[in-house]
Amino acid sequence: MTDPQIERKLIEIMRIINESDRPVGARIIADELRNRGYNLGERAVRYHLRILDERGFTEKHGYTGRSITLKGKEELEEALIGDRLDFVITRIEDLIYRTDYDPVKKQGNVIVNVSYVDKDDFEKTAGLMRSAIDYSISPRVGIFEEDSEDIFVPTGKVGIATVCSITFDGILLRHGIPVKPNFGGILSVENNEPVVFKDLISYRGTSIDPIKIFLMRQSTSVTGLLQSGFGTILANMRSIPQSAVENASLLFQQLHESDIGGLLAMDNESGNVLGAPVDVGMSGIVVSVGVNALAVVEEYGIDVTTRPVSTIMDYGTMKPL
Amino acid sequence: MTDPQIERKLIEIMRIINESDRPVGARIIADELRNRGYNLGERAVRYHLRILDERGFTEKHGYTGRSITLKGKEELEEALIGDRLDFVITRIEDLIYRTDYDPVKKQGNVIVNVSYVDKDDFEKTAGLMRSAIDYSISPRVGIFEEDSEDIFVPTGKVGIATVCSITFDGILLRHGIPVKPNFGGILSVENNEPVVFKDLISYRGTSIDPIKIFLMRQSTSVTGLLQSGFGTILANMRSIPQSAVENASLLFQQLHESDIGGLLAMDNESGNVLGAPVDVGMSGIVVSVGVNALAVVEEYGIDVTTRPVSTIMDYGTMKPL
Repeated sequence: MTDPQIERKLIEIMRIINESDRPVGARIIADELRNRGYNLGERAVRYHLRILDERGFTEKHGYTGRSITLKGKEELEEALIGDRLDFVITRIEDLIYRTDYDPVKKQGNVIVNVSYVDKDDFEKTAGLMRSAIDYSISPRVGIFEEDSEDIFVPTGKVGIATVCSITFDGILLRHGIPVKPNFGGILSVENNEPVVFKDLISYRGTSIDPIKIFLMRQSTSVTGLLQSGFGTILANMRSIPQSAVENASLLFQQLHESDIGGLLAMDNESGNVLGAPVDVGMSGIVVSVGVNALAVVEEYGIDVTTRPVSTIMDYGTMKPL
Repeated sequence: MTDPQIERKLIEIMRIINESDRPVGARIIADELRNRGYNLGERAVRYHLRILDERGFTEKHGYTGRSITLKGKEELEEALIGDRLDFVITRIEDLIYRTDYDPVKKQGNVIVNVSYVDKDDFEKTAGLMRSAIDYSISPRVGIFEEDSEDIFVPTGKVGIATVCSITFDGILLRHGIPVKPNFGGILSVENNEPVVFKDLISYRGTSIDPIKIFLMRQSTSVTGLLQSGFGTILANMRSIPQSAVENASLLFQQLHESDIGGLLAMDNESGNVLGAPVDVGMSGIVVSVGVNALAVVEEYGIDVTTRPVSTIMDYGTMKPL
């Protein structure tokens, strides 16, 4: 039995091959893995593919790539079954662990969401995103063209990386504050003040990212909010020990100097924060999510595909939109 | 402090009033409550409204109806906060408790989903539903016109009640078998055989019904399945003690004589069933959901609104489509 991290990557590679209707090469697998938050180069993918071939789970078709075997399909169905449901949270925790942005030195990696729009829609998209920047995490974004080597961008599209709110969890953890993402949800805002979560989905017990679910349901009204001060945005909630609130506040202040914001509420009491339940002894922190800037783009009818909590990125390479 | 069941109904009535942009009368509230699984007559609603008036949470505007007060809005935000997240499962458990269909006497109530389509689309809808009946629970449905007194039907629409898979949970419980709905999900079918859950969402830890989430994401491919034997359907999974499997099997056989089916898997082993995790000592039961027949209608581009696990209905009043 090999190491569980390798097993997880092998499974993910098999899933990618299985989802394709034709043989898939290492390059495409590496790109898709990066989209799913695994940073494996082509060479590393080839190494993993050889293991899969040896186990009889995949087979090679000359230079065109690999396809999955019947044995591979069976393995895929059986493998990691118990933790498929925890797949979202496990992947998020992996990214949290890899976040190392230092708010004092102002350098390091943040977690980003990656969205794709048609090239032709990019100017309009950028304008709309700028209008909604107050409800996202940071005005700084990464823009990637088709030929990018950092982020896989489909033909005819532009990739837009926005800072993901889960970055806070990574920074809190780096500073010794135990933190767990609890819920993603839809938050009502009245007179520009966050009021209460209308709907919530736990980060545990789902195989689909809660924010992705709400994005697909198009349940936000960021446009209304920008116009009238009343609307709904996407937000998420995590909890930390109450004794850590002071240190956490300090970190949020420091992050402001790096243009990283989005804090909506941090209560020093148990019970609830903006309607989301908080365990005894814990304090809930609600943060607007980076993809609100993309939610407004979708509300305008522009076709956007967003992968929340996508990968990590050097914040220094991201520029104001 | 009044009884929690009454408090829950008061909150739900406040939510309905709060969601409306004009004052709402008792009749409309009663209709909407029924859609949400609460069977309160107009008279009972008036009784609850008087309590809300006395507490200063609602106010009466002559004959036009009630609106919510600022105090009521605040109450709504604070009230039942901890259990909002369990709202879906609590409502489902309430309906499970009220299911009393007897497979031997062949009489009693089942749980139904309610869907709405335009009158003009009804014939087409009925045809499509018939084609997918093998992936639902029962060929018997309830059809309701605008003037129905049983189910609220918006103007220009037809209401279609389909037997909900949660009915099984109610019948198992009535027969002394402890049962809990665990997950709703998307199930892959190959060569007409159910293979594995592709995605799962727990019935706990969400304020939106998992099946509704999957319906809105239009993640099924029932059409493909009907054509080629390969596709994806909606299904859910519950678990019972392993020692109860024999009795449960007998019940499922008896229910077949009432045209109630849809069982996809019942494993006598722990670990997993079709990829959904099952606790030690428990046995997982996977059932296709009644709204698959509506999923195929949506796949054809017909506009359908579905409320899964809507209310209970006398099975004797439901007829083959």
